[in-house]
Amino acid sequence: MNTTFLKACKGEKTDYTPIWIMRQAGRYLPEYHTVRSKGSFLDLCKSPERAAEVTIQPVDRLGVDAAILFSDILVPLEKMGCPLEFQEKRGPVFPEPIRSKAAVEALGIPDPEDDLGYVMDTIRILRKELADRVPLIGFSGAPFTLATYLIEGGSSKNYLTTKRMMFEEPTLYGQLLDKITECTIVYLKGQVAAGAQALQVFDSWAGVLAPCDYRDFAYPYVKRIIDALKQVTDIPLIYFANQGATLLPQTKQCGADVLGFDWRIGLDEVVRQVGQSVSIQGNMDPLSLFLPADRLEDRIRDVLIQAKGARGHIFNLGHGIVPETDPEKAVLAVKLVHKISREMRA
Amino acid sequence: MNTTFLKACKGEKTDYTPIWIMRQAGRYLPEYHTVRSKGSFLDLCKSPERAAEVTIQPVDRLGVDAAILFSDILVPLEKMGCPLEFQEKRGPVFPEPIRSKAAVEALGIPDPEDDLGYVMDTIRILRKELADRVPLIGFSGAPFTLATYLIEGGSSKNYLTTKRMMFEEPTLYGQLLDKITECTIVYLKGQVAAGAQALQVFDSWAGVLAPCDYRDFAYPYVKRIIDALKQVTDIPLIYFANQGATLLPQTKQCGADVLGFDWRIGLDEVVRQVGQSVSIQGNMDPLSLFLPADRLEDRIRDVLIQAKGARGHIFNLGHGIVPETDPEKAVLAVKLVHKISREMRA
Repeated sequence: MNTTFLKACKGEKTDYTPIWIMRQAGRYLPEYHTVRSKGSFLDLCKSPERAAEVTIQPVDRLGVDAAILFSDILVPLEKMGCPLEFQEKRGPVFPEPIRSKAAVEALGIPDPEDDLGYVMDTIRILRKELADRVPLIGFSGAPFTLATYLIEGGSSKNYLTTKRMMFEEPTLYGQLLDKITECTIVYLKGQVAAGAQALQVFDSWAGVLAPCDYRDFAYPYVKRIIDALKQVTDIPLIYFANQGATLLPQTKQCGADVLGFDWRIGLDEVVRQVGQSVSIQGNMDPLSLFLPADRLEDRIRDVLIQAKGARGHIFNLGHGIVPETDPEKAVLAVKLVHKISREMRA
Repeated sequence: MNTTFLKACKGEKTDYTPIWIMRQAGRYLPEYHTVRSKGSFLDLCKSPERAAEVTIQPVDRLGVDAAILFSDILVPLEKMGCPLEFQEKRGPVFPEPIRSKAAVEALGIPDPEDDLGYVMDTIRILRKELADRVPLIGFSGAPFTLATYLIEGGSSKNYLTTKRMMFEEPTLYGQLLDKITECTIVYLKGQVAAGAQALQVFDSWAGVLAPCDYRDFAYPYVKRIIDALKQVTDIPLIYFANQGATLLPQTKQCGADVLGFDWRIGLDEVVRQVGQSVSIQGNMDPLSLFLPADRLEDRIRDVLIQAKGARGHIFNLGHGIVPETDPEKAVLAVKLVHKISREMRA
């Protein structure tokens, strides 16, 4: 197996810098559209064979060093008892948002195999079909991020309803977060049992919180998840706090093997702050893939140079690749990361 | 005149910490709705008497230490030759986005008095009606932020079109930014001539740029504006780079008297980075105004303590106050800032 990704996560020496791309299985790939056109987005998440197929597409086309399960962070919430819809323009919608004690208490903890078997099946199919070409990353959302969707009933501009619950009803907020955290721990343990070889926890909206609120209302739940997983597995755990530059003094204590970063912070500054305590992942602006080839090469080299002092570095974009991206640019980026990082080691 | 705000901007000693609130003249105030209901948002911006009236409302009700001109950062762009609409759901829309050399070349530089006389008249009326109770802040958008609206044709989720122009057509992008910068300099000079006693440059979307792109594609134009203004006036200049925590090593060199911050960075960290070189403004999460009174007091005290080592501190929210805010909470916040900061000096 190509173990470059796993080694970098653990801070072991590698011949080159591994790369995978957030949303690498997705709308910028024509072959994804072919599979996706057969049904809705949620259908695809729930169809193990097809989900596995789109998961492997970027491994074939891009030559990335890891596959990431095709799914959505909101999938387990539906099975907690919240109907979920994906609307073409609005994105994810929970028509019955969770805003009361009764609603929180009505939430269940889904069983990975009984309730989310399609995810576990997808992982099992993938392990078989990948046949150890590259490791498979499983994932979940982080509790705060998941809570925003449940409380707001979907995406949000300023997270008013979520923050009001945090500030006006902290006990209720805490009960909801406890429940989401429990669900997430069980869900991720299920993924490990099914065969995930690394896990990423996506805290997509952590960056909307002041550091003091992140400390009180988001971080403790992340820490609880990582602690729980560390008791049962030693596969790499990655925590990605999107727009989390100023949360770093806190996030670096979470116990993950890898911290992921968006492009708003230089990786040299990250290394200055985390030292050799964790590996780092990131962090090129996804829109950098629109740079002409020569300037893309410069940009990639800059990121690699910035990350040079890291314990381990996994190259990635700072957020999901956008649908408008030319797949050939993604192919080029993977090649360049491999080539330049090999040269830098020589 | 209450000169506390002006003194803090320049780093002079004050008896207490001055405060004003971004969007203090706005939708959370019932008296604003009364005036606003007489016409569209743009109508209000273009009606000097009414714009002056809503500008003064928060001075009366909240007791803030500065008034800020009621207007919109997009107003001068319309007069560069881009039709502008405010749509109820979508917000600002430029139906004819600027994406070609011809479109850039067709843009004019509006004359402050001839083309934007309603803004200048509003300032003159305000100076008269405020009668030196508190200073009047004028403002503009920063060129990058303004450019995003022109290029995208309105608000944007990921600034794809803007960044594509930056990356794929840097010359065209530069020509557009040059023109917006020239317009902004002339516009702000006009505001100074009309009587503005401080100026704030809003870089609302600076935070979507990687530090290296901010350095190349946004900062130079801000610097040019500040340099130009410093040649003609010594009124305080405030630069607010929203979500700009990681841009601080660059923004602190811009020459402004004050740097504004959103809530994502602690002001103690800001002080650590800027030392005594500039005054600072900010930075409480607007949604903190939903905290119960006792915890709001704690939050305000924390911000004041964090800012203690600053050359000067102007208390503010980290972004605009939201329409759902209870005006009485804003009144309370102003009182608390005044009271606690007086106590801290004693």
